Amino acid sequence: MTHKSINLKEKLGLFDEHWAPRVIAGLNDYQFKVAKIEGEFVWHKHDETDEAFLCLDGEMEILFRDGSVSLKSGELFVVPRGVEHKPVASSECSILLIEPSGVVNTGDGETKLRAENDVWI
Amino acid sequence: MTHKSINLKEKLGLFDEHWAPRVIAGLNDYQFKVAKIEGEFVWHKHDETDEAFLCLDGEMEILFRDGSVSLKSGELFVVPRGVEHKPVASSECSILLIEPSGVVNTGDGETKLRAENDVWI
Repeated sequence: MTHKSINLKEKLGLFDEHWAPRVIAGLNDYQFKVAKIEGEFVWHKHDETDEAFLCLDGEMEILFRDGSVSLKSGELFVVPRGVEHKPVASSECSILLIEPSGVVNTGDGETKLRAENDVWI
Repeated sequence: MTHKSINLKEKLGLFDEHWAPRVIAGLNDYQFKVAKIEGEFVWHKHDETDEAFLCLDGEMEILFRDGSVSLKSGELFVVPRGVEHKPVASSECSILLIEPSGVVNTGDGETKLRAENDVWI
């Protein structure tokens, strides 16, 4: 074995902050980011891209203006571009985000929850 | 809950074939595909794109001309574009592939293992 795989749990063990995605890999001009979330995020949308959420541990919900989707470990959902959404988690939940490089976590939402972008771990 | 998440295990339960990726979601012009693999695939490369492998269940190895990487459940590896690789699994392994739509599983490799492309499940 000469190359090293990226262990998602290991990466998640390296930080504690919520709503602060860490980049773990690039795929062309896309990035894989792990994040821990808990509580309520802000309503926002990404006009320029879809955004994929893969729940790794725990449970989360993504609220839409017209409904919601629940995700538990091993479940995936792709939020279409331009669709307002608000991620929430009643207790800590670990997720993998897949989206183009440069996407800001709060999209068009102005908030103190805006995380520094492109932070590799 | 008005929207439905995509449960990876549930999708994997819908088919048995090896080396036959099924598309489960789109993300802009990218796709998420689940696959079951066992045995040896063929040497090939994708000149036009990187290719992400996330191991969901079991263990696999990706051989390179100059080495290899081992992946077990919860581990990710991105094979860079143009790099020859050969996925192998000594026993059945379930994976999630993330790559642009239209990527053929065997890349530039001519083989009977070439799967039908863009098969949704």
